[in-house]
Amino acid sequence: MKKKLSIVDIANALNVSKTTISFILNGRAQEKRIGADLVEKVMKYVAEVGYKPNSLAKSLRTGKSNTIGLMVEDISNPFFASIARLIEDRAYKNGYKIIYCSTDNDTSKTQDLINMFRDRHVDGYIMAPPEGIEEDIESLIKDGMPVVLFDRHLPGVKTDVIEVDNLFSTYNATRHLMDQGFKNIAFVTFASHQTQMMDRVRGYQDAMKSNGLRPTIVKEIVFNQDEEQIMGPLRDFFKGNPDVDAILFGTNHIGTCGLKIMHEMGLKAPTDIAVISFDDYDVFKLHSPPITAIAQPVEEIADNVITVLLEKLNDRSSSPKLQSIILKTDLKIRNSSLKNAI
Amino acid sequence: MKKKLSIVDIANALNVSKTTISFILNGRAQEKRIGADLVEKVMKYVAEVGYKPNSLAKSLRTGKSNTIGLMVEDISNPFFASIARLIEDRAYKNGYKIIYCSTDNDTSKTQDLINMFRDRHVDGYIMAPPEGIEEDIESLIKDGMPVVLFDRHLPGVKTDVIEVDNLFSTYNATRHLMDQGFKNIAFVTFASHQTQMMDRVRGYQDAMKSNGLRPTIVKEIVFNQDEEQIMGPLRDFFKGNPDVDAILFGTNHIGTCGLKIMHEMGLKAPTDIAVISFDDYDVFKLHSPPITAIAQPVEEIADNVITVLLEKLNDRSSSPKLQSIILKTDLKIRNSSLKNAI
Repeated sequence: MKKKLSIVDIANALNVSKTTISFILNGRAQEKRIGADLVEKVMKYVAEVGYKPNSLAKSLRTGKSNTIGLMVEDISNPFFASIARLIEDRAYKNGYKIIYCSTDNDTSKTQDLINMFRDRHVDGYIMAPPEGIEEDIESLIKDGMPVVLFDRHLPGVKTDVIEVDNLFSTYNATRHLMDQGFKNIAFVTFASHQTQMMDRVRGYQDAMKSNGLRPTIVKEIVFNQDEEQIMGPLRDFFKGNPDVDAILFGTNHIGTCGLKIMHEMGLKAPTDIAVISFDDYDVFKLHSPPITAIAQPVEEIADNVITVLLEKLNDRSSSPKLQSIILKTDLKIRNSSLKNAI
Repeated sequence: MKKKLSIVDIANALNVSKTTISFILNGRAQEKRIGADLVEKVMKYVAEVGYKPNSLAKSLRTGKSNTIGLMVEDISNPFFASIARLIEDRAYKNGYKIIYCSTDNDTSKTQDLINMFRDRHVDGYIMAPPEGIEEDIESLIKDGMPVVLFDRHLPGVKTDVIEVDNLFSTYNATRHLMDQGFKNIAFVTFASHQTQMMDRVRGYQDAMKSNGLRPTIVKEIVFNQDEEQIMGPLRDFFKGNPDVDAILFGTNHIGTCGLKIMHEMGLKAPTDIAVISFDDYDVFKLHSPPITAIAQPVEEIADNVITVLLEKLNDRSSSPKLQSIILKTDLKIRNSSLKNAI
C-alpha cells in the first residue's frame, strides 16, 4: 500500500497553493476561474501518485457524507454496468463514493430505494428513472437534493438530464438500411413508455414515412427476467414475418436475444435478414458477421453525469441553472447491414 | 402500483400462522424446522402476488438497517454484474436492500468502502475480496458483523465462503483438450495472487503434469483498465508462440480479448488454435464457432451467498458455525475445442 499523500504534499510538489489544489480536487476550478492548464497538471500528478482524498476528514469538515446514490434499471445489463463503473471511477477520483442499486423499472422498489438512500444521507442522486416516481423526485429536489437523470427523462420534472439523441439515432440507422436497398424493415423492441424508448420507435417511424408508403412493422415484446419469455414471442415474430428483410433492435438485450433466435433458425445476416442493434458491445463486435450497432458514448455520458452532479453539489444556490445535455451516438456500420457484404 | 400486502394477508390467504410466514420470509425456516413444502408454497405465493416486506416498519421493530453492503471486483465485468443482480433480487425478496461498489482490487479503496459501509450501518457484508484487507475483515468479524466472502477466500481469515472448484475446473478443461489430441496447450490469464486464480493455474499445471513431460506454457498478463494495455502483450504472445495449438483462458475478460486478437490475426478456432475460456456468457455462446466455456453456477452462487448471510443475520450467537461451500462448474463443450469440428 502506498503512503497516503495529503493536499499539502501535492501543493509542495507542484509549487501551487493548498487552496488552489483543494478547489481543483473538489471540482470547483471553473467556479474559481482556475486555468485549464493548471487543472490538467494537478489532475495528471494526482493520477500519477495515486492520491485519494481523505473522505472522512473532508466529511467532518464539510458536513457531507461524500456518497452519491446511483440507480440504474438493471446492473446486469452491460450498458448500465459500464456506465455505473465509469461514474464510480470518476466520482472516486473526486472524493465521492457511489452506492448503487437496480430499480428493475419497478416504481415501488425505486421509491423504497430512494428512502433507503435518504436514510443513508447520500449527498446526491443519479438515476435512470422508471415512470411513476415523478413526485418522489420533485420532493427530493424541493428538499435541495441534487438529482441528475440519465438515459431518459420524466416529462414535467425539472432537473438536470443527460441523454443521447435517440430519435435521430434510429432515424439514421433506418435510413442506412433503406440506402442499402432493404425494403421490409422491422423495429423490434421492449414495450415501454419511457422517453428514450418512445423516441427510438419514432425515429424508425419517421424514417419509414420519409420514404413513402411502406407500412411500419413495430414488434413490442414485454420484458421478462426469464429470457425464455422473451425468446418465445421473438421466435413467433421471426416465423410469422418471413418477408422482413431487415431488423432494427431497440436495445442490446433484445438484439442479443434476436441473434440467438437467428442462430437457432439458421438465419444469416445480412443475406437472410440485415441486422442493426441499439447499444454496442463485445457480443456485436465479435459476432460473425460483426453486427452494425448504434454505439452510445458511455464515457461521455458518465463524464457529463458526474460533472453536472459535482457542479450542483458545489453550488447550492437557490436557483441553480438546469442542464439538459443531448449527446450524439455513433452508427458503427459493420457487415450485418451491408447488402453486398460477403 | 400494486396495493401493498401484509404478512397477515399472506397468512390468511394460505391459512398458515403469521409467525410461520414471518420465519419463512426472514430465512429462518430451517432453524425453525418448517417443512420445505410449506416454504416453497409460501415463496411461490409471495412471488405471484409480488409481496414486498415493509422494510421501514421492520427496521424500527428490529433495530436493523436491512441493508447489505456488496463489494465486487468490477461491476462492469459480466460475471460480477450478473451475480450482483441475482444477489440483489434474492435479498430484496427477503426484505434487504443491497448497496454495492467496485473494489477495483485496490486494497486502500476497499478499506475506504468498508468504512463507508460501517458509517452507513449496513447489517452485513458480501465481498469478493482483494488481498491485503485481512485485518479489516477480521475487525468486522470481531465487532460481530456477518461477512460472507465469495469467488475467492483470504487464507487465514475465518469466515463463510462460497467458491467454485477452480482447480478441478481447469484440470478438467485441460484434460478435455488433451483428449482431443491438442499438444501445445497454453494457459493465458491475468497475473494475480488471489486464491481462485492460483487454483486455476494449478489445475492446468496438474493436468499437464499428469500427462507426462510436456512443458507448461503459462502467460500472465498484468490487468489494466485500458484494454489496449492488455491487447498488446496478448498480441505478442500469439505472435511469439506459433506452436501453441490450444489455449485455456483464465477469465471471461482475457478470453474475450484473446478472441479479438484472433479475429485481428485471422486465426480460427479450433483449426488454428482450440479455445476454452473460464466463465460463460453471451459473447462465447454467440461466437462462430461457439466457444467452449467453464460455466460458473451464478444462480447457485448468489443463492448460497444470500442464504448463508441471512442465516448469520438471524443467528447472532457468539460462536456461529462457519460454512465453506464449494460449488461445481460446468464445462460447456462447444466447437471451439473439438478437433474434428467443422
